[in-house]
Order: sequence, then structure tokens, then C-alpha cells
Amino acid sequence: MRVLGVDPGLTRCGVGVVEGVAGRPLTMLGVGVVRTPADAELGDRLVAVEQGIEEWLDTYRPEVVAVERVFSQHNVSTVMGTAQASAVAMLCAARRGIPVALHTPSEVKAAVTGTGRADKAQVGAMVTRLLRLAAPPKPADAADALALAICHIWRAPAQNRLQQAAALHAASKGRTR
Amino acid sequence: MRVLGVDPGLTRCGVGVVEGVAGRPLTMLGVGVVRTPADAELGDRLVAVEQGIEEWLDTYRPEVVAVERVFSQHNVSTVMGTAQASAVAMLCAARRGIPVALHTPSEVKAAVTGTGRADKAQVGAMVTRLLRLAAPPKPADAADALALAICHIWRAPAQNRLQQAAALHAASKGRTR
Repeated sequence: MRVLGVDPGLTRCGVGVVEGVAGRPLTMLGVGVVRTPADAELGDRLVAVEQGIEEWLDTYRPEVVAVERVFSQHNVSTVMGTAQASAVAMLCAARRGIPVALHTPSEVKAAVTGTGRADKAQVGAMVTRLLRLAAPPKPADAADALALAICHIWRAPAQNRLQQAAALHAASKGRTR
Repeated sequence: MRVLGVDPGLTRCGVGVVEGVAGRPLTMLGVGVVRTPADAELGDRLVAVEQGIEEWLDTYRPEVVAVERVFSQHNVSTVMGTAQASAVAMLCAARRGIPVALHTPSEVKAAVTGTGRADKAQVGAMVTRLLRLAAPPKPADAADALALAICHIWRAPAQNRLQQAAALHAASKGRTR
């Protein structure tokens, strides 16, 4: 499975591509950051994010795009930009028919470090180890994007089983109606 | 000036086109709602919003797109969908080089009713009167989109003067450096 992880943001949007399956060593194919100038018009920044994401989709052709689920509760000052950048990433993937998966920050931290309360350094250290990199990816947004992709590869089997169970349940309810 | 007003939302995204200049009677060219199914995947809903907005841009070729400025403080449950839908609307406009203007809900209410604390019925009544319609546009999202467009037409002269003053100020500072 090849996954593009996206840590959404307007100033820095982390992107990272990881390939592998749960239970086997994973491979990093690419990592980077899509940046947009803070003094540009909001609409133009969203167009720049779109162009950046499109380039990553063109280059790596991921089967799934994993995006951080944005909550409105915390970081009130930056949450709107994060929500807007994540909308653009989801739009780019869905337009190509690529499934979009959302994972919360604590799900991602728990997946790669074992605890949902891990700090940035801990996530960076585990991403470095799991992908056998020479050094932690910089900036933190890039490491977070890789962590999202890893999280998705590891959680996907369980999520698929849940979805299949839900689909079976819905189908059986449909038959008895 | 021809303005497309967008009251962003995932379930119902209000759209309305108004033509005119400040101080003259205004004309409504079109009004409607872009809807997406609540049970669809988020990415697919954003694609549906994009297609809907693109159709309105194709049909009416507005010179400006006026979008409601979304705040993260209130309506926590729906604010993320609103932010995401507004991102798509801004993206569609900016991609075509159409300027995007943001107005807050209270700016819009104040522009059409004289008070920033007006309720939906009051806004609907004033939109009906100002555009000489037979009845208030339904649903409220459609009326709000028209109110946004009216607000932009009336506020634009003042905003342009401010922007010109700021540009002159920046240019004069640049010369003295």
C-alpha cells in the first residue's frame, strides 16, 4: 500500500509518501513541505496548496491519501487555515477517485509511539527509526506527514474489517426490512 | 459590478448573483443552493461543492466572489464543514483570477438592515425589498448569499479607497528607505 500523508497547513503543509504493509518494514518514497507566502491573498494561497498537492499526487500516485483530522476546539488562531488546507488536500484526492482517510493527532501519535500524548520530538524519533532514516525529517510538519502515512498503513487492516462488518450489518438489516 | 455571493456550507451552500453599483437599484441575476448529501464521504462532498461553484462561475462570470468570513469561535459542530466549503469556493474563484472578498456575518447584516444583530427574517425581508423580489428567497442560505453580494457592492467603494491609501502609504515608505 502506498500512502500520501498530509499534515495540513497554509504556511507549511507537510507531505510524505510511505509504502508498505502492516507487520513489514516500511519504505519512505518522498517527504517535503508545500509552502505558501503568509502575505498572499487567501484564495491564492489555497491555489498554491492545490498545485503543490497535485504535484505530489502526479509524482507518487498514492492509493490512499491520509489527512490529519482537524478539530475546531484548539489552536483557534490557526485552525481555520488548517481546515482550509485540509479541504484542498481532500478535494484533490477525491477528484482523482483516491480514497481519503482521516486520523486524529492522538491516533497518529499512538500509532507510531505507543502513546497519544507523545511530543513532536518523540514522533520525529520514531518516524526516523521506523523508516530507517539517517536523521529526523525537518520541519516537524514533514515528519508528521510521514507519521500520518505510517499510522494509516498500520490502522488500515482494522479499519477495513470494521467497514466490512458495518457493510455486512447494513446489508443484513436491508434484507430483513 | 457583478458579484457572486457565497454563504458556505457542506449540506447547503447558498449562492446568489447581484449586479449593480452603490447608490443605484440592484438587480438579482440568479439565486440557488449547492447541496451535497450528508451521508457522502467528505472528499466527495467537497468535489460536489467545487462542481456546483464552477457551474455558477461559468454561467454568471462574476467580477468578484464575496464569501462569508468563517470564525472558529461559534457553531463548533458545523464550523469545520463551513470552513472547508468556503475554502473550495475561494479556491475556485482564485484559480480563475477572480478577486475574493470576505465579509463577516455582522458586516453583512449591518449593510442590508442597518444593524449587525438582525435576525434571518429581517435579512430576508431586506434582500427581498432591495432586489424587488416577489417573495423572500428560500432557504435562508440563498437569501444570505444575496445579502453578501449586496454587502460587497455597497462596501467595495470604501474598501477600495482604504486599499489605495494603504498602497500609497507602502509606496511612500518604500521611497524613503
